[in-house]
Amino acid sequence: MPVDHAARRAALRELLNSDGVPALLVTDLLNIRYLTGFTGSNAALLVSAGDDKQSEDGTVICTDGRYLTQVAQQVPDLRAEIDRSSARRLISSVASSELGFESHVVTVAEHRGWAEVAPGVRLVPTSGLVERLRMVKDEYEVNLLRSACASADAALAALIEEGGLRPGRTEREVGRRLESLMLDSGADGISFETIVAAGANSAVPHHRPTDDVLASGDFVKLDFGAEVGGYHSDMTRTLVLGEPAGWQRDVYDLVARSQAAGREALIPGVEVASVDAAARRVIDDAGYGELFLHGLGHGVGLEIHEAPGIGKLGTGTLLCGAAVTVEPGVYFSGRGGVRIEDTLVVREQGPELLTLTTKDLTVV
Amino acid sequence: MPVDHAARRAALRELLNSDGVPALLVTDLLNIRYLTGFTGSNAALLVSAGDDKQSEDGTVICTDGRYLTQVAQQVPDLRAEIDRSSARRLISSVASSELGFESHVVTVAEHRGWAEVAPGVRLVPTSGLVERLRMVKDEYEVNLLRSACASADAALAALIEEGGLRPGRTEREVGRRLESLMLDSGADGISFETIVAAGANSAVPHHRPTDDVLASGDFVKLDFGAEVGGYHSDMTRTLVLGEPAGWQRDVYDLVARSQAAGREALIPGVEVASVDAAARRVIDDAGYGELFLHGLGHGVGLEIHEAPGIGKLGTGTLLCGAAVTVEPGVYFSGRGGVRIEDTLVVREQGPELLTLTTKDLTVV
Repeated sequence: MPVDHAARRAALRELLNSDGVPALLVTDLLNIRYLTGFTGSNAALLVSAGDDKQSEDGTVICTDGRYLTQVAQQVPDLRAEIDRSSARRLISSVASSELGFESHVVTVAEHRGWAEVAPGVRLVPTSGLVERLRMVKDEYEVNLLRSACASADAALAALIEEGGLRPGRTEREVGRRLESLMLDSGADGISFETIVAAGANSAVPHHRPTDDVLASGDFVKLDFGAEVGGYHSDMTRTLVLGEPAGWQRDVYDLVARSQAAGREALIPGVEVASVDAAARRVIDDAGYGELFLHGLGHGVGLEIHEAPGIGKLGTGTLLCGAAVTVEPGVYFSGRGGVRIEDTLVVREQGPELLTLTTKDLTVV
Repeated sequence: MPVDHAARRAALRELLNSDGVPALLVTDLLNIRYLTGFTGSNAALLVSAGDDKQSEDGTVICTDGRYLTQVAQQVPDLRAEIDRSSARRLISSVASSELGFESHVVTVAEHRGWAEVAPGVRLVPTSGLVERLRMVKDEYEVNLLRSACASADAALAALIEEGGLRPGRTEREVGRRLESLMLDSGADGISFETIVAAGANSAVPHHRPTDDVLASGDFVKLDFGAEVGGYHSDMTRTLVLGEPAGWQRDVYDLVARSQAAGREALIPGVEVASVDAAARRVIDDAGYGELFLHGLGHGVGLEIHEAPGIGKLGTGTLLCGAAVTVEPGVYFSGRGGVRIEDTLVVREQGPELLTLTTKDLTVV
């Protein structure tokens, strides 16, 4: 299905109307991309709430001369102005006496400059309006997430198939190969720096790949993702090189049960804190609660980490269409750890799993 | 030579004293890395100006529990506090009645939250204090830049040597291979998305690699860089596949002369606008001024683009030790273009060239 930026802007105008904000100046570049499709590195967007009857979309985008051709191609449906000081240009043209701005994005210095440009306009702080819309993915977005996850699945399968996980290889070599295989499998880019953590390193949640070599008996934790059309996949699998020891089977089984409980808790309308609790309870009950060092998951989309956060202290509920990760872990310092992570979409009929690689303990 | 973070903090304290700022809360993560060596993703740093006699460095860093071990390893010389709300924690401990903050970094929403935490502390906006220090590289930094540039030089040499630039290969394939060769040549990572632009695409200044294939007679523009220890190299070379046409030799020669003029203008104390003018004049005089679509260059270091900007409208002067790019280009839309770019350090005895690949017209 084609992307419908106009529908996203209409949803934003509804939010503005219900919040009593006559117009919003959007300066976060990912929010602008979401609302218009524009991918340049300098832009501002002025969205007017209009009244309920207003069918015309009076949104204006402003960017600089480098993007003259690009903005015409990517945003043919909106009026484009060309000015290096994109935000200031739009502010100086504002008709209303009040203008909302993204207070979680705009710096204090920018805000001061804007106040000078348009002393007659009252700048009203807003926070996370477009991000609230972005939490619920439309089918165009889910398709891109699905492609990104498929690319990561294919890369890991190819890595195992070619014998790429073997004693003597360094973490760095494995990471580079996995990234290369994602690009071979249709990824436009890499979601984030690939984590490859072997042996005791697997007990470090966000270990960066080193020249340490994989050894027989090691846990090998792989946390990686592909980017397709601006959307990011996120998956972690922990494998064992050679025959797993008893304690490895036990901790793997524990984390897998916790992860399943987290996935099963993904029901539209659920409190995010209770999703975290559902997974954490399994690990707590086994007596390892203190070794689960981080939150359960996070939203994923145009950013690798975006709203909502799913943790102990998280607030709010999961809406149908939210794309999130579920990634519990148990880490035995100096010995090894297991994390299992999927990317899923919250659906009425139960969560849709996008990362399809098996979660059975894989021995390579 | 070893890195001397204490010397950098002493230089900052001098700036604070001369600006009358009793203490500065640093929240930009690259500024914190520059001042302490800490590379985590959550931190705040409180630097007190002290008086001239004060020899003790009372700087405090705050980060969250994920980085307990890392902060102890990377910043053994400073007191570290552990709190998820790192900036707020430090603000609530401030002894002075005034506290400087980075107004070009802190968002309006963060600033509001801070004001609530410490209603008795007056928050004083500052702008670019640490960035001013970062403009002048110390020898530790120049060494890392040199390594990054050497990695890029080696990668391009290897690409040409192995016949990697040949008709029929796609821009995307060439880009991936060049990135892989940089990693093979000691890079920790890639500075930015590699630009490979063949034929008519070379006329687009910031073309993203596509599946278009290289063809005999094409200009092939390669703009790429390596990252080593957090420092970024930046280099552009434009080559010709097969025998160059007369117009290709002419435009190449023009851009090379412009680039040489820009490099020669890199004298300590020079106005940045006059460096741009020195290179631009060569292209203007040839009647192609309108085809040189962008500024001449930019600072480079912990960021791929940092202060100072070198363009028509740039202000300020280049200090000895500044690391900058010089990158004029001439672009014939629909036909092809040439850009030649080096990374250099401004020195008393004349600029030190860090990107050593030949700028003679290379025919492959």
